[in-house]
Amino acid sequence: MLSLSDIRAARDRVDGVARHTPLERSRTFSEMTGADVHLKLETFQRTGAFKIRGATNRIGTLSAAAREAGVVTASAGNHAQGVALAAERAGVDATVVMPKFAPVSKVKATRGYGATVRLEGVDYDEAQAVAHELERAEGLTYVHAFDDPAVMAGQGTLGLEIVDDCPALDTVVVPIGGGGLIAGVAVAVKSQLPDARVVGVQAAGAASAAASLAADERVELDRVDTIADGIATRSVGERPLAVMREYVDEVVTVDDREIALAVTLLLERAKTLVEGAGAVALAATLSEAFSYDDDETVVAALCGGNVDLNRLATIVRRGLVQLGRYRKITVGLKDRPGELERVAGIVARAGANVYAVHHDRTSRDVAVNAAELELELETNDADHAASIVADLEADGYDVDVLS
Amino acid sequence: MLSLSDIRAARDRVDGVARHTPLERSRTFSEMTGADVHLKLETFQRTGAFKIRGATNRIGTLSAAAREAGVVTASAGNHAQGVALAAERAGVDATVVMPKFAPVSKVKATRGYGATVRLEGVDYDEAQAVAHELERAEGLTYVHAFDDPAVMAGQGTLGLEIVDDCPALDTVVVPIGGGGLIAGVAVAVKSQLPDARVVGVQAAGAASAAASLAADERVELDRVDTIADGIATRSVGERPLAVMREYVDEVVTVDDREIALAVTLLLERAKTLVEGAGAVALAATLSEAFSYDDDETVVAALCGGNVDLNRLATIVRRGLVQLGRYRKITVGLKDRPGELERVAGIVARAGANVYAVHHDRTSRDVAVNAAELELELETNDADHAASIVADLEADGYDVDVLS
Repeated sequence: MLSLSDIRAARDRVDGVARHTPLERSRTFSEMTGADVHLKLETFQRTGAFKIRGATNRIGTLSAAAREAGVVTASAGNHAQGVALAAERAGVDATVVMPKFAPVSKVKATRGYGATVRLEGVDYDEAQAVAHELERAEGLTYVHAFDDPAVMAGQGTLGLEIVDDCPALDTVVVPIGGGGLIAGVAVAVKSQLPDARVVGVQAAGAASAAASLAADERVELDRVDTIADGIATRSVGERPLAVMREYVDEVVTVDDREIALAVTLLLERAKTLVEGAGAVALAATLSEAFSYDDDETVVAALCGGNVDLNRLATIVRRGLVQLGRYRKITVGLKDRPGELERVAGIVARAGANVYAVHHDRTSRDVAVNAAELELELETNDADHAASIVADLEADGYDVDVLS
Repeated sequence: MLSLSDIRAARDRVDGVARHTPLERSRTFSEMTGADVHLKLETFQRTGAFKIRGATNRIGTLSAAAREAGVVTASAGNHAQGVALAAERAGVDATVVMPKFAPVSKVKATRGYGATVRLEGVDYDEAQAVAHELERAEGLTYVHAFDDPAVMAGQGTLGLEIVDDCPALDTVVVPIGGGGLIAGVAVAVKSQLPDARVVGVQAAGAASAAASLAADERVELDRVDTIADGIATRSVGERPLAVMREYVDEVVTVDDREIALAVTLLLERAKTLVEGAGAVALAATLSEAFSYDDDETVVAALCGGNVDLNRLATIVRRGLVQLGRYRKITVGLKDRPGELERVAGIVARAGANVYAVHHDRTSRDVAVNAAELELELETNDADHAASIVADLEADGYDVDVLS
């Protein structure tokens, strides 16, 4: 099984390629939770995520012949970029198979790090099959994203940095996708600080780890559904699962609303962009998915920051809905003069700003002599939003809250 | 005139309240420009902007009687929060007059720091008049956002940090709104490093400093128009102007497209949220608004990160347009079966992703037997976007590029 010395050996290989990323105390989130919250800003890692650590260690342990032959992997995400850059830095050829639907920006970034990208298959499973074909046919080494001891050891270097920078920590909170990161981090932390607690966090829509631990065998989900696409895996790996059984104290889940809220707060309050998977550790802390004492030192690992900027807009909108600061409502209007003005007046007196108005008198959904007004509002909080709806209803309007 | 010792004295007052913010070398922007680019991450300052520095120093220099009476200011932006927190930390009452249209989030943040917020007037000028009325009627001290020696000295502490953290710098690039920040920073830098260059950056739509320096007197613009609302001032201050004349080497401008691009790149590549005003120094560097040598050490001050998240979505969209990664086009269709499929096929073969489609057969703008298809596309770059338009036109379609 993975040991502290494996991870220390990995550090020697990883050091020149990956950054030692900052660990910062967050005043904002400490005040919000009562705990002493620190953030491990792995978002500032090269390639924008921790995957470079594991990939670098894996490639660093290849034989001369294997280096010569090159490596292959399948990924539509951060692992693709991690392998591409790690290989480039090691002078090893890398082929990355990405599914055909992969976002343009990810394809471009992976090519930018010098990898050969092949777009094959309609989903990850098909892309992976093609990558394994190349492994066999061309004698390449397949670099697994998590189910590999050298990859786990590389990811564990993030845990070494956390212990070095915050030796007084009580609890470390780490995302779980395939389990490579938490396996490495848990060994790095618990081997040095046996009294520390390691909490794993999964998206509720991709919660194979808790199920696997409970069943005492690897459980594969039929489908996954979460905005945290970086940890949307159908199953944790066999090897990470074995380590987790030994070293992880607790596994909890957060739902998409909690994840969107954490992404939004990190952006607005900490000025830091994280992807959904990168936000789950903070989301679990904010939502008290695990319990902690006042002033307990909690380190949340923000493991990645690669999110498509169009997708980000959608996530932030959901976060603002959670905060009660954005509401989309429809108001039924009678078809008589002055209705628009009347409704606008109620909203203005309540102190809400109007982001957008859509007024449709020809919608098929409303009666012929009526019309519907759709309003997007900036409100102070949930109570404020509710009071505006109540004001409109008190004036006889039918109101639907859409979000 | 402002001196280095004023700024050093300010540091003693500012230290316990404001953070010494990080200065980080940016590999990404160094590679993009050929210079050795460092970013002063003042976005991580308390309240999200540098204004806390000047406000703390101003309040720290009040007489006992003036402290007892309290302070007042007018602002719809970062200065409001800076004064509110500085006053709270000094145990001084603060009244902040904000115009009625001020964003809910700014009002809430200012109140959150313990200030009394009064919503008065339809714009900044009217709010300011009310604040000056309170100054006279209630004997409060008006804390000016920039035209005040103690405020300039406080902002200058940011310059001390830059010199401490990067003594080998060649050029410091600093935003100019009212001029308080650049005045303080220029004195701090040039007094210690006489060979260093200080470049000021204004938004093209609010470029009073260059005009004032050229005219050798303060020029007031009739109107300002820029997405960088934090520096959308109609005129630089008299006192900052006097300092700039002596200490600033060059003043340049950047337009909204360049600002949006810098905000977008900082978010996507550096995972850091800046507001428009916070991005102008990097925008000027990327657009070579001033010239620099290869490997020249350039420090860009990212002075604030407070941007409404809805507004951010609009700015990022503009940034993606600049990068050629987002295009909105309309395609004229003949009203015959299969047109939608045909157009979708051309776009798909060109490798663009479709974000959104709007198909309107009843638009008043198109002929009765025709229809219009609006497409929002994710493209690789400007060449790719142009090639898709060319492909459609080659097949006989009329294409309008909307953005």
